Order: sequence, then structure tokens, then C-alpha cells
Amino acid sequence: MATIHDIAVGAAFNIVTAVAFLLLFAFLRLQPVNDRVYFPKWYLKGTRASPASAGATVAAAKYINLDIRSYLKFLSWMPAALKMPDDELIQHAGLDSVIYLRIYRTGLKIFVPIMILAFALLVPLNWTNDTLESLKVVHSDIDKLSISNIPYGSKRFIAHLVMAYVFTFWTCYVLMKEYQIVAKMRLRFLASEKRRPDQFTVLVRNIPSDPDESVSELVEHFFLVNHPGHYLKHQVVYNTNKLAGLVEKKKQMQNWLDYCQLKFERKAERPTTKTGFFGCFGSDVDAIDYYKSEIEKIGKEEAEEHKKVMKDPKSIMPAAFVSFRSRWGAAVAAQTQQTSNPTVWLTEWAPEPRDVYWNNLSIPFVSLTVRRLIIGVAFFFLNFFYVIPIAFVQTLANLEGIEKALPFLEPFIETPSIKSFIQGFLPGLALKIFLILLPTILMFMSQFEGLVSQSSLERRTASKYFIFLFFNVFLGSIVTGSALEQLNTYLHQSANDIPRVIGVAIPMKATFFITYVMVDGWTGVALEVLRLRAFIMFHLKNFFLVKTEKDREEAMDPGSICLYWSEPRIQLYFLLGLVYAVVTPLLLPFILVFFALAYVVYRHQIINVYNQRYESGAQFWPNVHLRIITALIVSQLLLLGLLSTKGLEEATPALLVLPVLTIWFHKYCKHRYEPAFVRNPLQEVMRKDTLERARERNFDLKAYLADAYLHPVFKSNEVDKFYVADDPGAVEVIVPTKRRSRRITPVQSEDGGSDRLSVMESVQER
Amino acid sequence: MATIHDIAVGAAFNIVTAVAFLLLFAFLRLQPVNDRVYFPKWYLKGTRASPASAGATVAAAKYINLDIRSYLKFLSWMPAALKMPDDELIQHAGLDSVIYLRIYRTGLKIFVPIMILAFALLVPLNWTNDTLESLKVVHSDIDKLSISNIPYGSKRFIAHLVMAYVFTFWTCYVLMKEYQIVAKMRLRFLASEKRRPDQFTVLVRNIPSDPDESVSELVEHFFLVNHPGHYLKHQVVYNTNKLAGLVEKKKQMQNWLDYCQLKFERKAERPTTKTGFFGCFGSDVDAIDYYKSEIEKIGKEEAEEHKKVMKDPKSIMPAAFVSFRSRWGAAVAAQTQQTSNPTVWLTEWAPEPRDVYWNNLSIPFVSLTVRRLIIGVAFFFLNFFYVIPIAFVQTLANLEGIEKALPFLEPFIETPSIKSFIQGFLPGLALKIFLILLPTILMFMSQFEGLVSQSSLERRTASKYFIFLFFNVFLGSIVTGSALEQLNTYLHQSANDIPRVIGVAIPMKATFFITYVMVDGWTGVALEVLRLRAFIMFHLKNFFLVKTEKDREEAMDPGSICLYWSEPRIQLYFLLGLVYAVVTPLLLPFILVFFALAYVVYRHQIINVYNQRYESGAQFWPNVHLRIITALIVSQLLLLGLLSTKGLEEATPALLVLPVLTIWFHKYCKHRYEPAFVRNPLQEVMRKDTLERARERNFDLKAYLADAYLHPVFKSNEVDKFYVADDPGAVEVIVPTKRRSRRITPVQSEDGGSDRLSVMESVQER
Repeated sequence: MATIHDIAVGAAFNIVTAVAFLLLFAFLRLQPVNDRVYFPKWYLKGTRASPASAGATVAAAKYINLDIRSYLKFLSWMPAALKMPDDELIQHAGLDSVIYLRIYRTGLKIFVPIMILAFALLVPLNWTNDTLESLKVVHSDIDKLSISNIPYGSKRFIAHLVMAYVFTFWTCYVLMKEYQIVAKMRLRFLASEKRRPDQFTVLVRNIPSDPDESVSELVEHFFLVNHPGHYLKHQVVYNTNKLAGLVEKKKQMQNWLDYCQLKFERKAERPTTKTGFFGCFGSDVDAIDYYKSEIEKIGKEEAEEHKKVMKDPKSIMPAAFVSFRSRWGAAVAAQTQQTSNPTVWLTEWAPEPRDVYWNNLSIPFVSLTVRRLIIGVAFFFLNFFYVIPIAFVQTLANLEGIEKALPFLEPFIETPSIKSFIQGFLPGLALKIFLILLPTILMFMSQFEGLVSQSSLERRTASKYFIFLFFNVFLGSIVTGSALEQLNTYLHQSANDIPRVIGVAIPMKATFFITYVMVDGWTGVALEVLRLRAFIMFHLKNFFLVKTEKDREEAMDPGSICLYWSEPRIQLYFLLGLVYAVVTPLLLPFILVFFALAYVVYRHQIINVYNQRYESGAQFWPNVHLRIITALIVSQLLLLGLLSTKGLEEATPALLVLPVLTIWFHKYCKHRYEPAFVRNPLQEVMRKDTLERARERNFDLKAYLADAYLHPVFKSNEVDKFYVADDPGAVEVIVPTKRRSRRITPVQSEDGGSDRLSVMESVQER
Repeated sequence: MATIHDIAVGAAFNIVTAVAFLLLFAFLRLQPVNDRVYFPKWYLKGTRASPASAGATVAAAKYINLDIRSYLKFLSWMPAALKMPDDELIQHAGLDSVIYLRIYRTGLKIFVPIMILAFALLVPLNWTNDTLESLKVVHSDIDKLSISNIPYGSKRFIAHLVMAYVFTFWTCYVLMKEYQIVAKMRLRFLASEKRRPDQFTVLVRNIPSDPDESVSELVEHFFLVNHPGHYLKHQVVYNTNKLAGLVEKKKQMQNWLDYCQLKFERKAERPTTKTGFFGCFGSDVDAIDYYKSEIEKIGKEEAEEHKKVMKDPKSIMPAAFVSFRSRWGAAVAAQTQQTSNPTVWLTEWAPEPRDVYWNNLSIPFVSLTVRRLIIGVAFFFLNFFYVIPIAFVQTLANLEGIEKALPFLEPFIETPSIKSFIQGFLPGLALKIFLILLPTILMFMSQFEGLVSQSSLERRTASKYFIFLFFNVFLGSIVTGSALEQLNTYLHQSANDIPRVIGVAIPMKATFFITYVMVDGWTGVALEVLRLRAFIMFHLKNFFLVKTEKDREEAMDPGSICLYWSEPRIQLYFLLGLVYAVVTPLLLPFILVFFALAYVVYRHQIINVYNQRYESGAQFWPNVHLRIITALIVSQLLLLGLLSTKGLEEATPALLVLPVLTIWFHKYCKHRYEPAFVRNPLQEVMRKDTLERARERNFDLKAYLADAYLHPVFKSNEVDKFYVADDPGAVEVIVPTKRRSRRITPVQSEDGGSDRLSVMESVQER
């Protein structure tokens, strides 16, 4: 059992590590050479140019910051990160990012008052007992602060009971307020948005096949008949998987060509390569010529495939993006059922063009339900039985196994130092690799399920990941056993006993979770701000590949918020906080430090680093809300289980009311706020339509929407000039200065309005 | 333990009773005097006139059938009932009734092949063992036919396993086919329907209050702005509870007046009554004069209240029926969200006018969720704790209690015969009364929840009643204990053990359920056809009250299918059949007899007796489907529990697959077919709109819809002439000859088309 002293040592160590990371970050970010690692967002926005081109006077100053004064205020980034007001931040980084930050703020809002109350009331109540001492059980000072220190049947438990009510009500109150605010922000965001193609567009799937008409004709006829006066145009979806592969391959070859040419320039010696498998086998050839000819060859194939896709009716998928004359028409089409057969002509709001997940657009209805079943079962097994394959790999990956499979390695492996390394390292390796790969695996599962937008994929994956964390990290740490063993326990215990068994174990695990919060939370967040991976990758690329400003632009990897793996982790802290709020309040300050630190760090990252991949308008908030509610209910059930062993009979019925009320609260919120995240109210779209019609009477919507929903592969094929002239209509207007700036970095006006005008002009010229 | 002989005796007894009832029915229905009891539907349709007015030659023949020959074919009603083809039956009695009959047919379709398979395979397998004999346990011959007769660990269980799969697949197959057919029938029904007000109308609830505009103006402005070109008119909803009360009171007085006048005619002596409480206290007055003056008084009050309601803005509720120019407009408004606040301007399809449950139209959103929570909790307690108040009443209602409360009764009660009667009868009385009242209680609960149509009320109540029957009749008979004790068991046993405990008890309860099926099923259905209550009531009324043809019309009580209490009872038979199909196949023939008998009887009743109160277009089918699926899953889990004690380890995982597949199947069906019962596809309404526009270019829809959604209290106030001219548009067209015929019985042409034309003319004249 850890004593307060142990915890203090652990905390000190973690604080030192975290502070060291932060200091290192503060130092590195000041070096101009790292500018593109720590401030890529500004480069993408076009407001910051490379120091190389900024005309620095001293050569060294290009790479190292020599200004001593700037080092003195090395923590200045923190207040700077907090300064930007929300509205500006939405302009700067989109609503998704701002609402993502709100999750941390919600954490602070929930737990600060809870901590104050818990420390003012529960801690003294727990402390002024001597149950643990009188029982002579092994215990730590931390346990003296927890509920374990209260004697059996004491009336003091009533305080915990009351606190459970207070905490529940406070959490629900904060959650409701937040839901309200987020919903309002979303609506304001949607209302203030400029014209976007997805506002006018509906995605239609499962278009039935017709022997007489092509998909395109069918769509046109169907919507002309059933939405007369509203239908404008449509864009069929092509099966471009092969074409996309070719484009990808060409890009790779181009990369190699660039690399070889750079090598040639430096060494003045023409590099060679082999034509065979991964350049390892086959005959030597001149690399530059080889890659050039390959690129040409693929280019031809690509052009052919392009033609084929556009001509062949078989490459047209039974899905289409249908655009309407007004937002009202699109809102109506998206919210209504089209035919009496609910499995064909499925309509839904089109995701914004860059959010579309193209590969899944053609999956038919029956296949979708089958896929969902398969993934449901697969996820169940992954969740509860994931230890089995890992244990299997572990048994394979022992020394004897390796020696048997690869006998020639035997003398090497038998070296004592290597042997001990393998023995110490290998068994854990499989598990570690699995856990690192897990979010990706879950993402693949979600992709297989057939969702059609990146944002929905991320949300679905986040749900899966949270379930996994809940069973395997949270419950797994408490019940100490794999989820498989747990499953066995749950099945063989009564519904009454499960919360009891887990509840009783909870106070004992407090110290473990405190350590977990410090390592995973504090140090993890401090590592995030350092961006070690991006730092190394950028400098490697910068050293080996970069020759032009454009290359440097491409070497820069701003990354983005990976909602699907970061959000479930935050939820774990909510869960811990709510579960331990009544049981061991000492955990709360550690969680609060995490929330505060993460809030500052992610705010900084969002302002300076991350580049949003899409904008869903905070559609993930209902999921966040649901998971906090889940955590709340779990905490109530576990407290119920714990108190039922403490000799206070009145506690059980009193506590049973809480989950019922919480579930009801959730239902209420769902009815009250969720529609704002799912549907598009007619009043709002009508207002926008009317306004716009009054302002721009002669706007050519058809031209504006022309290529908005064309597969990106068709667009990236065009020359840049064309791309710039054409694509902005689809992408630029949404959040100014996005994709274009990845390729060329024009200095742009901050004002999106004038930008939009120029885009319109360019569109109207066509 | 019941032997086959016991069962045979029981069966014989029940068969004799049932046949006696059927014979009695066959006799009674041939008597002209009972014509209005057993053929009211035809009177309502107007194709049958009272024998009194039919000009019978012999006085006696008016009351008694003297034609001997007709007695010889006394069972002729059965084939007659089966003869009418479905399409004609839909015309005759509406889709709801026909689909209701389909439930019985589904039962036959599911269980006939299952029974054949089970008797061909499982019964011989079970019979050719001697486990029970060798074990020397007390057993009956029936148990020899059941799964109990197979020795522990025998491989023969594999046959049961396979059969469980076969039965599941067969049931799912039938269910899917039925869902498909019902959905198609519903769509065809909706498509073939004539113009109905609800096709054009949307119910809007929770209209926000506005200080500057009245509800009516607000509605008009809102829909003119947000549904331009589609909005036609609206009808506000008045708070008419007081007015309806007055109308009711007036009607009662009128009844009394009629009664007194009749008495006066017969006795030639003016009856008197007392003015006080229920005519028991106060001074004597001349009854006829008194009632006449009372009616006049109430009539005045009514007129005043009527005026007040129409003028006072406070009596206008924040709800309205909004009609659109086309079905398309209504379909769009019903399926879309109107404003960013999802708790105001709630739109939904208007129920047909006679289906509206007016009292609930004004309940605000927050109140609705609170009400749902309250009813949820209340139903939980009703379901699991209903024995507590009954036990309490029972303890009160014993002899000592009565003697204490009402000491003057003591000598009376102490009489031995009365004492034994009370002792034997009283304790069960409270329970009996409760069980009889239960569906009504559940209906009140559903009404409190705030549903706005009779059909949805019935569906909700049916769900509640099924849950109650499942826990208290099905599980209660197996685990033998009140649901409260069961709850205790479930909470204290592991999730694994619950199906085991119940599963093991199942084979032993087979004989009990066979008896149950015979008493409740066979005899119950035979009683239904006799219509004892309606028979007695009609003759009482006929004797005491009837003086004119109109009175006789009103004395007739056709009744209707009470979905909310009859459907859950059918579901209980599905549950029994599915649970026992593998375990004790002997139960199946008894259930089949029930389904067949009930099918014939209810078909007869629907053709000849019941008068549909509303037409929901088979909207209850998804619930029926869901409950059969539930029964299927329960049967799988119980078989799993049973087999897990039989020493066949492989059975558990093999059987676990079944519920997963079944749940997936349900999800698939839900996605595939349920929308047809909930939403209104645009293609269909567009087709109807276009057709109609082409046919009747100048139809005045506004006039047609004028009073369709006026509260019935306003309509019943008007004179009959006005009612006939105005209301048919609202009611007649749906199913010809409905309400009107309750009041006057005109001979109508069978062709609804010409009827509709005349209605239209009358509407256009206005």
C-alpha cells in the first residue's frame, strides 16, 4: 500500500518530468528552426513565412534564437494561449476545436466545486475516525482520508449519501448548462456560416437499379418528380478506388524522384536503383531516368483509367449527391422518407466535401446491417477476449519458439545479455503493440461498418474505444483480471453482487489511479506539447528532402485533434473523478491538475499547431454528454455496492433513486438538445435562404456547386491553376485558407469575405 | 402431477363447455329478437333493418325463430365467417381489424409446421427413454413426452438443439413474410384510400406563447413563412373540458327524461323524483318537468360556455391542426423539425379526427417527460409490488377487520353460512377485482403519459399489459411466487442462473399451462362469441327504455376490438408455444386449437358485430412483431438455462448464437419495415397529389377541411342536418357509414364513390 510519502515522491517525479518537458518545449519553440514544428497553423493560414525567406541578417539566427530576453519569459505561451477569445478561436480553428476544449472546461466546472465540498466535508469526516487503526489492517494514510476509515454502520455515511446527491445534481446541472451552451454555439455557428455546398446538398444512397435509365437519369427524374421546384443538380459517385491507387503510386514515385534528384545535386553522381521488389532485387538502372519513365507510365494509365471511370456505367455507384435550389429544399429532402421502401433512396445531409469518406458510399442496405452485426460481434470478442491472441503470440514469442522457427539465430539469442533482454521485453511487446494499434484497429472496424463521413467514423470509434477503456482499464484495474475473467465473474454473480464486488475494491485502488493520472495525464500532456514525433520527422525530412519552400511546406505535419483516441481518454478521467469524488476525494486535485494543464496545452496546440481536417459543427457533443452520464451512473452504482457492505440499510433505496433520475435526466436532455445536432430546422434554413436571396439575387448556385462533390482524385489530377480556380468553391469558403495553403502559401487577407468574392468571381468566369 | 388421463378429463370438460357455449350462440343468434346483439355491424352499415320494421307476419316470429330448418345448420356461421375475402373485409371493417386477424393466422403459420416437426422428431426421441422411470421420480405420462425424459448428458439433446435452430429460423421467416405482407397491405390501403382530412393535416403542439399575437395568428404566420406555398389553413384547439362535461350532463338528463316519459306512458302516472344528491334526498318534484327544466338550464349554460370558449383567448390551447394544400406539404411538415428549439412547434401527423384524444393536446414538453418518468416508476411498482396493496386489502377484509370496523354487522357475519362464504370468497376478491380492472388502470396510466391519439394509447397500454402478463402470469406461474419475490430472486442470482432456475422449472409446468390454455383460451373465446354482457344489457335496455327505432339503435352496443387487452393475451400464447415447442411439444396442439378457434370467432365478430372506433392502418403491427421476437428470445434463453443443467457443455455456446441472431434479425426488420408504419414517403403522397390534381382540378380543399378537426363537442351541438351535411367529409369518407348510422340509419348504396360525390356536393354547396 502506498503511503502519502510514496504518492508525494511519485508526484514529485512526475511533476519534474512534466516541467522538464514544458521547459524543453519552451526552449525549442523559440528556435526559428523549429518554427514550422510548433507553429504550422500560422503557416497554413499564410500569416507567417519561413525565417529563411524573412531575410534574417545573421546566418545563425536563422536556426537558433540568440535573443536572451525571449528566454526569460519562456512560459509566456501559456497566458498567450488563454488570451484568444472564443469567437476569434472559432474563426481561427473552427467550432469542433473550440468545443473540444470545452470538454476540459466542463471537467474543471464539474470538479472544482465538487473538490471544495469534498475537502470541506468528507475529508474531515473520514479523517476523524480510527477504524483502520483499530482493525489493525495494513493501510496507508491515504486510506485514512477515504470512506474506508468510517466504521461499520456509522451514521456518518449519511453525509456521503447526501454528497452523492449533491454531486449528481451539480454534475447534471453543469452538463445541462454545457449542452445548452454548445447547442447555442452550434446553431449560431451554422447560422453565421457562409454559403457552403453541403447546406444545399443531400447524399442519396441505395439508388435502385433500373434497366432503362442510368443512375444519373434516374436521380434526376426522381427528384424532379418528387421535389419539383426544389431540385437543382446532382453529382454521381464514381468507383475510384483503382484510380486513387494509381494517383497514390504516382505520388510515391514523384517522392522518390525528388529524393534522387536532390541526391544527385549534392553528390554530383547519378544514383542507381533496382527495378525489382522494393528496390532490393533486379538489375541496376539509373534511378532518375527510371522514376521519370515510371511516372510517365503511371500517368498514362491514370489518364486511361480516368477516361474509363467517366465512361463505364458500371463504375457509377448507386449513390449521388443531390443539390437543391434552396437550403429549405435540401433540409426537406434530408429529413423525409422518399419511397415506401425504406431501404432505397436513403437521404441524409451531405457531409462537407472534405469530410466525405468516399470508399463507403456504395455499400447496399442489407450489407450494412450484416456488417454492423459482424462488427458488433467482433468488437464484443475484441473487448472481452483480446488477451487470448496476445497470450498466444506471447507463447510463440518466447526463446524456444524463436529458436525452433529460426534455428540459425540460436547462437545469437543465447548470448546472455540479449537473452535477458528478449525475455524481459518480448512478452510485453505484443500487448504494447496491440494497445498502441488499438485505436487504429477500432477505426478500421468503424470503416468496415460503412459510415460515410470522417466525423461519424471518429465518433463511432470513440464510442468503441471508451467501452474498451472502461472494461479493460477501469474495471480491469479494479477487479484485476482481464475482461475475459471479469466476464466470467459478471455472469456467475448476481446482479446485486457485481456493483458490490467492484465497489468494495474501489477505495483500495485509489493510489493506483493517482499514479495513473500523474503518468498518463500529466506527463502525457506535457509530451503532447513537445510534439516529439513531428519534431523528429520534420527535421529528418528537412535535412534529406527539402529543397524548395514548397517541400518545406509539405514536410510540415500539423496533425489534428484525433477525437477518436483523445476524447475517450478524457472520459476516463471524468469516470475516475466521479467514482472517487465520494469515496476518496484525494484523487480529485490530481484530476483537476490534469484538466487544467490539458486545457492550456491543447488550447495552445489548437491555436498554433493543429490543422482541422473537417468541420462537423460540434456534432460529437451528444456523445461526450452521454459518456459523462454513463460515468455518473457507474459511479452511483458502485457507491451503492460499496455502501451496501457498510451496514447502512437505508442507503440502498436512497441511492437507487439516483440512477433512475440520472437516466431520466439523460432522456430529457436527449429530447431537448440532441435534435439541434442531428436535424436542420426549417425556420433557420428559411431565414438564411431569404436573407441570401435578398442580398444576391442573381447568384449562380449551379456553377457554385458544380464540382463541389467531385471525388478529390479527379481534382488532384488537374493542374494547380485549374485546381485553384475550381476547388476553392468547394473548400476555401468553408474555412478560409485551408487546402490551398498546403500547396502554395499565398499571403492572404484575414477577411474571408473578400476571399469569397474572388472565389465567386473565379467561379463565375468559368 | 397430472397424468394424461387428468388432462383428457380437463380437455373433455373444457370442450364440452366450449361446445355448449357455441351451441347456445348458434341457437341465440337465430332468434330475431337477438339480431341486434349478434349482427349490430350490419345495422350500422344500414343493410339490415330491425325485424320489427321488416313487416313480419306472425307476432311471435318477431322474437323467436320458428323455422326448424335453420336450426339444422346451426354451425353454418363458421364457414360463412371464413368466406369473405380479405379485400372485401378491409372494405367492410377496416384494415386494423383484418390485420388483427392476421395475428391469429401468424400463430397458425408459425405453429403448424413446428408442431408437425416436433411430433415427428422430438416426441419419439423423448418417449424412447426411461430416465424418469429409472430415476423413480414421480412423473406423469406427459413428462415422458417432454425433454425431462432424456438422460443426463445424452447426445439426443443435439436434436433439441437443432430443432431450436429450425424453429427460430422458421419463426423469423414467417415473421419477416408477415411484416412484408402487412407493410404492403398498409401501403396499398393508404394508397387506395379516398381523400381524408388527416392526409393533409399536421398536428402542431407546444406553440410558444407570444405577447403580441394570438395562437391563431402565430400559427398562420409561422407556416406562411416557413412553408410558403404549402400552408392552407389551421384549426386551433379549444379547452373544452368544461363544455364536454356539460354536454355529458345534458345527455344524462335527457336519458332520465326519456326513462320517465316511458314510465309515464306505461303507468299513466306522472313519476316523481328528488332534487338532491342522486335523486335520494330533497323534496319530491314532478320528474318530467324537473328534467325538462334541467335540460333547458344546462342547454343555456352550454351555449354560454360555448360562446366563452370561442371568445376567450385563454381557452385556446397552444396546439393546432395545420392543413396544407397538398399531401406533400403535410408530409414535409410532419417529418421535419421546425425550429432550432426542438421543444416547440412539434409537428406530427394528425391522427384521423375520430382517433384524436382531445384531453392531452395541450400538455407542454417538460410536463411530458416528467409524466413519462412518473408513469415509468409507477408501472415498475405496479408490476413488481402490486401484491402489497392487495395483501393489505386482504388483511383488512377478513372477518375480524370487518367486525371491528362495522361492529353492527357482527351478528350477521357470524352466521355460519355467511361466514364461510366470506372466508372463502373475500381474500380472492380483491385480487380478482384488481386483475379485471388492470387493463383499465394501465389505460389510465397511458392517458396520463400524454399521448394524443386513441390508437397510440391502445398500443402503449398493450405494451404495459404484456409486460405485466409476462412477469406475473408467465414467470409467476413458473417460478411460483409474486413478481416481488421473483425480483428478489433475480437480484440475488447471477445472470447465468436466472435462465437456469426458470428453465429447469419449465417442463414441470407444462400441465398447468395446458389447463390454462383450455380454460382461458378455448372457453374464453367461446364466451366471447356469446357476448353475454352485451346480450343482457341490450335486453334490459330494450325492455325498459326502448320506445323508438332510434332508441333501439342506441341500445345496441357493438363494441370493438380492445387491442390493449386482447393482443397481449394472444402474445402470451405465442410465448407459451415458443417456449414449449422444444421442451414439451404436447402443448402445441392445444395452442393451435386456440388460434384456430379464436381466428374463426373473431372473424365472425368482426364481420357481424364489432364497430371500429378508429382506423390506424395497422400501426400496431411493429409492436406485435416486437413481442413475438421477445417471446422467441425468452424461449431461447430458457432453453439455454434448461440445457445447461443437462450435461451437454457444447449446447451453451451453440445456443448463445441464437439470441444474438434474433436480435439482429429484429434490428434488420425494424430498419426495413418499420418506417412504413411511422413515416409517410414523399413519392407516395406526390403520386396521390398528382392524380387527384389531374382528376379534380377545382376541388375546394379549404371547404372540405373546414370543420374536420373541430372538437366533437362543437359538432354534437349542432342540429343533425348540419352535422350530416358537414361531418361526412370528415368521417364518412374514411369508412362509409360510420358515425352517422349510429344516430339515424339511412339505407345507403354500397358504393362509397357515389357517397363521396354527394358529400362533396354538399360540401361545395356550403
